[in-house]
Amino acid sequence: MKKFLLVFLGLYAISTIGQTEKLNLMPWPQEVIVGEGKFTIASNFTISVNNNNSERISIAATKFLRRLSGRTGVFIENGFPVIASEAKNTALEISYDGIGKLGINQDESYQLNVSATKITLHAATDIGVVYGLETLLQLLNNSATSFYFSEAKINDFPRFTWRGLMMDVARHFQPIGVIKRNLDAMASVKMNVFHWHLTDDQGFRIESKTYPKLHELGSDGLYYTQEQIKDVVKYASDRGIRVVPEVDVPGHATAILTAFPEIASKDTVYTIERNSGIFHPTLDPTNEKTYEILGALFGEMATLFPDKYVHIGGDENEGKHWDENAHIQQFKQKHNLKTNHDLQTFFNIRLEEILAKHGKLVMGWEEIMTDKMPTTALIHSWKGVNEGVELGQSLITAAKRGYNTVLSNGFYIDLMQPVSEHYLVDPLPKNNNLTAEERARILGGEATMWSELVTPLNIDSRLWPRTAAIAERFWSDASVNNVENMYKRLDYVSFRLEELGVDHIRNRDVILRNITNNQPTESLEVLTKLCEPIKIYSRNAGGVEYQTYSPFTLFADACTVDAADSFAFKKVVDNYVENQSAPNLNALTSFFDSWILNYKMFNALHKNPILSSISPIYTNLNAISVSFNEALEQGKVNKEQLQKIEGLLKTLETPVVDVELAVLNDFQKLYAFLVQNNKTIIAPKTNSLKQ
Amino acid sequence: MKKFLLVFLGLYAISTIGQTEKLNLMPWPQEVIVGEGKFTIASNFTISVNNNNSERISIAATKFLRRLSGRTGVFIENGFPVIASEAKNTALEISYDGIGKLGINQDESYQLNVSATKITLHAATDIGVVYGLETLLQLLNNSATSFYFSEAKINDFPRFTWRGLMMDVARHFQPIGVIKRNLDAMASVKMNVFHWHLTDDQGFRIESKTYPKLHELGSDGLYYTQEQIKDVVKYASDRGIRVVPEVDVPGHATAILTAFPEIASKDTVYTIERNSGIFHPTLDPTNEKTYEILGALFGEMATLFPDKYVHIGGDENEGKHWDENAHIQQFKQKHNLKTNHDLQTFFNIRLEEILAKHGKLVMGWEEIMTDKMPTTALIHSWKGVNEGVELGQSLITAAKRGYNTVLSNGFYIDLMQPVSEHYLVDPLPKNNNLTAEERARILGGEATMWSELVTPLNIDSRLWPRTAAIAERFWSDASVNNVENMYKRLDYVSFRLEELGVDHIRNRDVILRNITNNQPTESLEVLTKLCEPIKIYSRNAGGVEYQTYSPFTLFADACTVDAADSFAFKKVVDNYVENQSAPNLNALTSFFDSWILNYKMFNALHKNPILSSISPIYTNLNAISVSFNEALEQGKVNKEQLQKIEGLLKTLETPVVDVELAVLNDFQKLYAFLVQNNKTIIAPKTNSLKQ
Repeated sequence: MKKFLLVFLGLYAISTIGQTEKLNLMPWPQEVIVGEGKFTIASNFTISVNNNNSERISIAATKFLRRLSGRTGVFIENGFPVIASEAKNTALEISYDGIGKLGINQDESYQLNVSATKITLHAATDIGVVYGLETLLQLLNNSATSFYFSEAKINDFPRFTWRGLMMDVARHFQPIGVIKRNLDAMASVKMNVFHWHLTDDQGFRIESKTYPKLHELGSDGLYYTQEQIKDVVKYASDRGIRVVPEVDVPGHATAILTAFPEIASKDTVYTIERNSGIFHPTLDPTNEKTYEILGALFGEMATLFPDKYVHIGGDENEGKHWDENAHIQQFKQKHNLKTNHDLQTFFNIRLEEILAKHGKLVMGWEEIMTDKMPTTALIHSWKGVNEGVELGQSLITAAKRGYNTVLSNGFYIDLMQPVSEHYLVDPLPKNNNLTAEERARILGGEATMWSELVTPLNIDSRLWPRTAAIAERFWSDASVNNVENMYKRLDYVSFRLEELGVDHIRNRDVILRNITNNQPTESLEVLTKLCEPIKIYSRNAGGVEYQTYSPFTLFADACTVDAADSFAFKKVVDNYVENQSAPNLNALTSFFDSWILNYKMFNALHKNPILSSISPIYTNLNAISVSFNEALEQGKVNKEQLQKIEGLLKTLETPVVDVELAVLNDFQKLYAFLVQNNKTIIAPKTNSLKQ
Repeated sequence: MKKFLLVFLGLYAISTIGQTEKLNLMPWPQEVIVGEGKFTIASNFTISVNNNNSERISIAATKFLRRLSGRTGVFIENGFPVIASEAKNTALEISYDGIGKLGINQDESYQLNVSATKITLHAATDIGVVYGLETLLQLLNNSATSFYFSEAKINDFPRFTWRGLMMDVARHFQPIGVIKRNLDAMASVKMNVFHWHLTDDQGFRIESKTYPKLHELGSDGLYYTQEQIKDVVKYASDRGIRVVPEVDVPGHATAILTAFPEIASKDTVYTIERNSGIFHPTLDPTNEKTYEILGALFGEMATLFPDKYVHIGGDENEGKHWDENAHIQQFKQKHNLKTNHDLQTFFNIRLEEILAKHGKLVMGWEEIMTDKMPTTALIHSWKGVNEGVELGQSLITAAKRGYNTVLSNGFYIDLMQPVSEHYLVDPLPKNNNLTAEERARILGGEATMWSELVTPLNIDSRLWPRTAAIAERFWSDASVNNVENMYKRLDYVSFRLEELGVDHIRNRDVILRNITNNQPTESLEVLTKLCEPIKIYSRNAGGVEYQTYSPFTLFADACTVDAADSFAFKKVVDNYVENQSAPNLNALTSFFDSWILNYKMFNALHKNPILSSISPIYTNLNAISVSFNEALEQGKVNKEQLQKIEGLLKTLETPVVDVELAVLNDFQKLYAFLVQNNKTIIAPKTNSLKQ
C-alpha cells in the first residue's frame, strides 16, 4: 500500500517528514502530495507531447532531456520529444490546451503527476508545461544505484502574475550571454518578467536605426543590436518570460544628451557619466524636439518589444536644470504647471500618448504617479526606508487610486542584504486593508539588480541564488515563509543553477586565483566564507569611489551575502553559550583552530598589493581566534585578555577592503558570555577534546 | 648601471637566469632584452596613440586598461586611451604606420620598449599593436608592494603567417559566447586564423536566406544568424584574426541532404546524423542543382566572410553512393573520369570556378590535391600516422607541387595527447630538403578542435592551455623548443586565460559538483589530477558510443590531458629509484598517503550511479597505494606482495569510465625497481620520516 503525504499551503514547514524532507522544490508549489514510489531514469526514457505546435515545449523538452542526461549520466537513446500519436507508452506524457499568451493575469497553472511507472504533465498553456518541466527536474533524486523522480502529485499556479527581475545594463553593460543565462535561471524558478533597464546616465544600450548617434555616442560601443534584442525577446518568450524595456527619462538621461545636447535643459557639453548617483542632466520637456526623438525611439522599440508595457523610468529627476532655465520657467507659468512634478507629469502624459499610438501602456517608477496621470499607467513602487518612507507605501496608494502596481522596495538585491530579509517582504501583507479589487491591482514584484558594482564576472553571484527565494515569494503561497527551510532548499537550487551556465559559484575561485596570482587559494576561500561585501550604499560612498571602469576583481567581489560559514558558526556559538559541554567547546575551538591554520597558509603566500590589502582582516581574525581559544581552553579569562578581545572587536567593526566580518555578532556574543562568566568557564585542558 | 640580458632565438632556454626566470611570455618573442628596471603601475597610468583612426587599437587599448586594472586592483583614473597630440607624458605611447590588412604574408611585427619611466610600442600596422599589448600584459610582475612591467626591449614578428585554430561547430554547436571568448584567447597568443568548420553530417550551422531549409532542417535550431556571423567576423578582425569558413562537401554533407535530398547521390531519406565517423551520404556532382544550391550558398557566404579563402572540406568522401548510382557511373564514363577521385576533382574545380567569381580562393583538406587542381588552391594537410601515412607528407608534396599549404596533422587537439607532442611538431622541420621558394609555400598550421566529444561546458578545457603551446610553435623561432620551460610558462598562461572568460579551469569543479550532487569534491579533484581522458579515437569507439546528445558531464569530462600531479609524481618516483634517501622515500609515500586518505573521503560520499562508476579506479588506486606503502615502509617485499602489485597494475591498465591513470608508467617503474631490489630497500620504519 502506498503512503501519501499532503504538503501544501506552507504547512510543509511543519510537515517535513519522510520523503518531503528530500524535496528541494523552489518555488514551493501550491499543492504537493508526495508518495514513496520512484520513477527510475533509464536510457529508454521518452517524452511525448499531444501535438507539435509549440516551439516552447519543443525547446524546453529537448533541454529537459539534456539536463536530465547531464545530471544522471544516463545515455538517453531518444534525444528529442515525440508526438503522442506516434508514440506508445512514453515515460513522460505532456499535454496542453493551447499556446500561451505573454501578458498579465494569464493562466500559468500546471498539473504534474509522477508515479512509479508513468509521468503526466498537463497545463492550460505551453507556458504551464515549461514550468512543470522545471518542477519535475527538481523532483530528481537518487540512491546509490539509480536516479529517479520522486512520486508526487502537484497542482500548481502562481500567487502573483508579475514575477520580475530588473537588470540594469546601463551602468555596466552585460553581453547577450549574461542575459541569456539569467533568463534560463529565471525560468528555472518560474519568473516571468525580465525588466531590461537599457538606458541611464552611464550608457544608452539600444541600437537606434533612426538616431544612430544615440548608441554610437552614448555607449562606448557597448550596446545591443536590434537583431540581438529580437533574439533575446524570442529567447525569453520561449521560456514564458515577457521583456519590459526601460528608457529612463527625463532624468538619468546623460547618455542620451551626449548624443543630443540640444534637447537638454541646460546648454552645456555632455559626456557619458562614469560615476554613480543622482545627476542633474535632464531632458527639456518644453522642447518639441524632445518628443520627436523619443517618439521615433519608442516607435523603434514598439517593433522590437511585443510586450504591452514600456517602462519610462521617471525616477530621481531633481529638476535643478529646470529651475535654472528661464524658458522652462516661462513654459511652466504659461501652462499653469506649478511644480517640477507637474512639469514632469506634463512630460509623462506626452509620452503616454506617444506610446498609446503604438498600442503600448506606460510603466514608470513611483514618481510618475500624480493626480493627472491616467490609471492605465503601471506604478513601480521602489522607495522605502532608505528614502525615508515606509516600505511599499506607494504600492498601497497606487492600488487604492486605481493603478496596477508592482513592488521593488524590499527586493533591491544589489544592496547586499541577507536573502532572508527579501524573502519575508510580501507585496501583499496579511493585514492590508485593501478591497479585493484593490488587492488585484497589486500584480507582484520585481527584484532589482542595479549594476554600479557588477560586471559579467561577478553579477551572477549577486543575483543568485538569492533571486530564487524572491521568486518563491512571488509564486508560492504567503504562508510559505520558513526561513531555515528556505535556506536549506536554496543551497540545492543554487548548485543546480550551474547547469544553466550561471557562474555565481565558479567565478569566486577565478577572482581568488587572480588575487593570489595563481597561488593556492584555500586560505582565501575560508575567508570568503566569513566575509560579506559591505551593505546598502556603503561600498561606493557618494557614487565616486568606483567609476564604471574600476576593477571589480577584488576580494569584495569574491565575497557574497549570507557568507557560508556564518550560519554554522552562529549555531556553534549559540550551542556553547547555552551549554559548555566538551563537544560544544570542541566545535567552537575547531573553528578558531581552522582560522589560525589558514592564517598561517595565507601568510605563506607571496604577497602582492591586493593580498597585502586583505592582510589586516586575517591578522585580526587570527588574533581574536588565538585570544578566544586561549580563554576557552584555559577555562578562565583575565582582565587583560578580555581587554585585548574587546580591542580586537572594536577594530574588526571597521570594514577593510569593502568587506565586513559576518561573524562579528557571534564574536560579540561570545565575548559578552566570557565577560559574564569569566570565573566559571569549565574547560578541561586535555587533548582528548580535539578528536 | 643597468644590466641587460639578451634572450632570443631560443637560446633563452639556456640563458634563463635572473629576471628572465620570471618572464612568462608565450609565444616567446623573436628578440628579448631584459633589464632590471621596473615600470610601476599607478592610478595615473595613461595610454596615448599617435592617431585615433584604428578601432582595433581603441578596443584593444581599452580592454588592456580593464585587464591591467583587474589584475592589479589599481583604480586607473583614465579608463580610455587618448590621442598623442592631446596628451603629455603618457605612460604608454603607442604608434603605428597604418591600418593592417587581414591576409597572408602581412607585416605583423611590433617593437616594445619598457623602461622604468616610459613604455613605447610601435608597429607597422595596428594589428602589430594589438599583439604588442598582449606581450606587455605578459610582462606584468609584482613585488609585495607594487605591480610593475619588467624592463625589456622586444623586437617581435611571427615565423609563420598562418597561425590557425579550427573549431568544429557542426558536431556540437557552440554559441557565440564560446566563439568570442576563444577568439580572445587566440588573440592573447597571437593566433590569426579562425577556421570555422560550419557544416558536417551532424549539422548545418549557417543561416541561409536563399535556402532557409538548410538551417531550418539541418540544425535542430542551432545555427548562427547572418548578423551573428558578421558580428563574429568583426570581433575577430578587431583582434587581427581572419575567419575562414568551411562548408564541407561533397562528403560530410548529411545535414545538407536533410534539407535537399534531391542533390544526394542516393535516393533515400536523410536525417541529421547523431553518431560520429565517416558516412556514405555525399552530394551528386553530376547534378546541376548541386551547383545551383552551392553557388547560391557560397554567394551568400562571400558577402559574410571577407577573407580571400573559403574552405570546401573535401575530406573522407568514400564514394560508395557514387559507385551504386548508375547515372553517376555513366557521367564518369562520358567525361572520362576514371576514378571517384577524378570525379571529386571535377566537382572541386566547379566549386573553384564558383568561388573565383566571388573573388575567393579554394582551401580544402589534402584530398583535393589532384593533378588537375589549380595551384591557387590551398592544401590543408591533415593525414598522418593514424591514417597510415607519414606526418605532413601531403604538406611537403603540396609545397613541391606549387601549392600554398598549412599543416594540421600533429595539431589534432581533440585526440587528448600530451601538449608536448604537439609542441614538438614543426610545420617546417630542420632537415627538410625544400627550396626557399617551396618553404615559403608552407604558410603555417592549424590546431583542430573536432567536436564529437565537446560541449560548451568542456570545450575550453580541451582547447586550453594546450593551444597556446601550438601558437608558440607557429609564432616563435624553431629553436624555442624546451619542453620543460614550455610547461612552466604554459601554467601561467593558462591561469591568465581566465580573465578572458575562458572557463577551462573553473568548469572542472562544476562537473565534479554535478557528479557528487553537491557534496565535497576534494577527493575527486585529487583523482582528476591523476587521470586523463583516453586518447586518440578510443573514447568513442566506432563513433557510436556517444551520440551528439549524450551526456558530457562525466568524470572523463572533468579530466584533462597532462594531468597536473602526474609530472610531480614522475619526478618523485625517478628521484626515489635514483636514490632511496629518507626524504625521497618520504616524498613518495606522501603521495600514496594522500591517495589513501582521499579514498576514505571518497568512500564517505553518498553514492549515486555516477560516483559508483568511478569507484573501481579509486579502489584500485587505494589498493596499490597501500601495497606500495607497505613495501616501501617495510624495506622488503615478499613474493605475495609483488604479485598483488602486479595484479593491480594489470587491472589499472584497463580504462574505467573513459579515463586512464596517467601515473601508471611510474607505478610500473616503481614496481620494476621493487622487483629488482626486493632484498635491498632500506627504509627505517620510524615515524620520523613523515614530518
